[in-house]
Amino acid sequence: MKKLLIKNIKTLVSVYEKAPAKLSGKAMAQLPCIENAWLACEEGKIAEYGSMEDFPGISDWKDLQVLDATGKLVLPGFVDSHTHLVYAGNRETEFVDRINGLSYEEIAARGGGILNSAQNLRTCSEDELFEQSKQRLREIITQGTVAVEIKSGYGLSTESELKMLRVIRRLRDLNWIPVKATFLGAHAIPVEFKGNKQGYLNLILDEMLPQIAKEGLADYIDAFCESNYFSAEDTRKIFEAGKKYGLTPRLHAEQLSHSNGIKTAVECGAISVDHLEFCTDADIELLKNSSTMPTVLPGAAFFLNLPLPPARKMIDAGLPVAFASDYNPGSSPSGNMKLMMSMACVQYKLNPEEAFNAVTINTAYSLGLENELGSITPGKRANLILTKNIPSLGFLPYAFGSDLIDTVILNGTVWN
Amino acid sequence: MKKLLIKNIKTLVSVYEKAPAKLSGKAMAQLPCIENAWLACEEGKIAEYGSMEDFPGISDWKDLQVLDATGKLVLPGFVDSHTHLVYAGNRETEFVDRINGLSYEEIAARGGGILNSAQNLRTCSEDELFEQSKQRLREIITQGTVAVEIKSGYGLSTESELKMLRVIRRLRDLNWIPVKATFLGAHAIPVEFKGNKQGYLNLILDEMLPQIAKEGLADYIDAFCESNYFSAEDTRKIFEAGKKYGLTPRLHAEQLSHSNGIKTAVECGAISVDHLEFCTDADIELLKNSSTMPTVLPGAAFFLNLPLPPARKMIDAGLPVAFASDYNPGSSPSGNMKLMMSMACVQYKLNPEEAFNAVTINTAYSLGLENELGSITPGKRANLILTKNIPSLGFLPYAFGSDLIDTVILNGTVWN
Repeated sequence: MKKLLIKNIKTLVSVYEKAPAKLSGKAMAQLPCIENAWLACEEGKIAEYGSMEDFPGISDWKDLQVLDATGKLVLPGFVDSHTHLVYAGNRETEFVDRINGLSYEEIAARGGGILNSAQNLRTCSEDELFEQSKQRLREIITQGTVAVEIKSGYGLSTESELKMLRVIRRLRDLNWIPVKATFLGAHAIPVEFKGNKQGYLNLILDEMLPQIAKEGLADYIDAFCESNYFSAEDTRKIFEAGKKYGLTPRLHAEQLSHSNGIKTAVECGAISVDHLEFCTDADIELLKNSSTMPTVLPGAAFFLNLPLPPARKMIDAGLPVAFASDYNPGSSPSGNMKLMMSMACVQYKLNPEEAFNAVTINTAYSLGLENELGSITPGKRANLILTKNIPSLGFLPYAFGSDLIDTVILNGTVWN
Repeated sequence: MKKLLIKNIKTLVSVYEKAPAKLSGKAMAQLPCIENAWLACEEGKIAEYGSMEDFPGISDWKDLQVLDATGKLVLPGFVDSHTHLVYAGNRETEFVDRINGLSYEEIAARGGGILNSAQNLRTCSEDELFEQSKQRLREIITQGTVAVEIKSGYGLSTESELKMLRVIRRLRDLNWIPVKATFLGAHAIPVEFKGNKQGYLNLILDEMLPQIAKEGLADYIDAFCESNYFSAEDTRKIFEAGKKYGLTPRLHAEQLSHSNGIKTAVECGAISVDHLEFCTDADIELLKNSSTMPTVLPGAAFFLNLPLPPARKMIDAGLPVAFASDYNPGSSPSGNMKLMMSMACVQYKLNPEEAFNAVTINTAYSLGLENELGSITPGKRANLILTKNIPSLGFLPYAFGSDLIDTVILNGTVWN
């Protein structure tokens, strides 16, 4: 396998000989960097780095690719810990419905929303679903995402949930970037179970879960804990069942109302609790004594005009915070993590260092990738971003409408 | 000069044999389109168009470039009617100051803000300023902007204001896209006139204006009508003086407080009144009886977390509305008009057709370019956007984080 040397790096960002698993509170503002640096990768991993002043020179040119990064920053790539990027078609018409005054809940009540995606997905072949999703995966890699979590939850029948999860596995097997799969059967109650939530819960627990576990199709289990969707009690049952099959919980919580999702997630040992628009001070206290990562999804709050989750307050209370894209057709049709970082700074008042850690180290933690991604650390996977010529890291969120990513490197190889 | 034929266009957008000068109220939701169309350009102008079903065939291949737009939309390019893209350096450090809790006004009071840009600009050579600005102009063209207004106002001395305006002229003389120049000496009160606003006003009126007029460097005159900057009365004097030299007024009004800018602008016959965060119902009534274009700058409202200007209310009241980028280093470091269109839909509840008209026909009107740009109309300049493969126009604002521009055409020629 080729070796890669990047030299004359203006700033090498997030450099740790031994990286922390996650960053909390004041530590989130730390971002160790080396100015005028070099970085060597071997066997797809980060091998060595240092200051150009101490550059040892090249003794072995065999199979060595050299990149000159004069004027450029080198960053660990973005880790996106919450997406629904496997879907069929889009929901642009609902976007216009909302502009014309319908609420997200009203659209859902009319058979739109998640059920609309379910309708599209069920009639889409696995191959077609794979091709559409592959195109989205390619786009987010171009935008600097180097690991991604993808959820099921637009199938809502055993057959269609399995179809989604098989597509996620095929995306993982492309071996472009690490892909983690989450089973989100409890995303909505499908039409055929209208008025019979318990019947659908039984299907999830008795049929979907055993089948998914048998095929080894999921790493995580998730639910949409929300009024008119799944209660805290439903969520607890789903999580307990998932854990028996070795699936770690992560949760959609407190997005449209306060539904005790955070409490349930913490009590069930969830690795991540996501959305949090209606997170209370009491929830922040609960999170303090947990290993659950609070995850903000600024694209969805922006796109649905929701109140902003209290990310600043959480960090000030000593918590870790992660930011992810929620890339999905209904409430966040973008996986652009640089733009999410801009929103973290502009709307949530994270400083650029906090925002960067929130989309790298902390999202990597929430996917169990803390030893593999999220920082420039020897032995970690060489999934990197070379920026265009920019003055500093803060310029990334500052220039919120600019594409500032020059080159993406995956497994030590330039991505095209 | 080369001829250009674009064929198999999925949708040709904003097609008029004779285009309206601007669109107001309910008419803003109109967007005449032709599905499966062809478009011919000659001598840099739009020549003919039609449905592929009636395509007459090609009789003369000489000097003809043919583009196949299968799956793609063809749009008139964006017209950006409010920018400050000639500046030196950036103001990323103030961005971090604001995140850390300082207000825009507090930063300005500490010598930051516009005065910071003035400091940077005065020490920057004209050539260096031109090079930096040219790079920004190139970027916004890549993002689909095909005509732009640029303001002075970071010079704040006769010499430096002239330097800025000469750079704007050099950008115009590149002949990439139409560039309109606005003299904004009254952008802030420079350090050397602290406590002596009248002295600075005298400099603007007695020295800057005559010199600028003599060199023919400006099309428009502007002011920042705002508490601690320039009053409505100051603005009126500046506008009256500018008009004597043939400069049409346009105004920064009601951004940070209500300062009677709209009233002044309407009374002075300003072509455009911009920002409008603190616009009142009475202001909307005033605008109804005027030819002044209300212009919203969503990038600045987003970046500074300002209250949203009442764009929806204005359209519902029968007014025209334009959206522009306000591209500048302090309060809107982006000239990405597609993203502004997303904000117009997501945050301001314009539907995609209204948003598109707001960044094309209506901005063209406010720059006196209504006969030259803003729609697909025979005789207008062939400054066009070919999108990537997308399902519809609404997908542009919907996919808010995606680059969906495939090709930009300027004067009937593909831009590289």
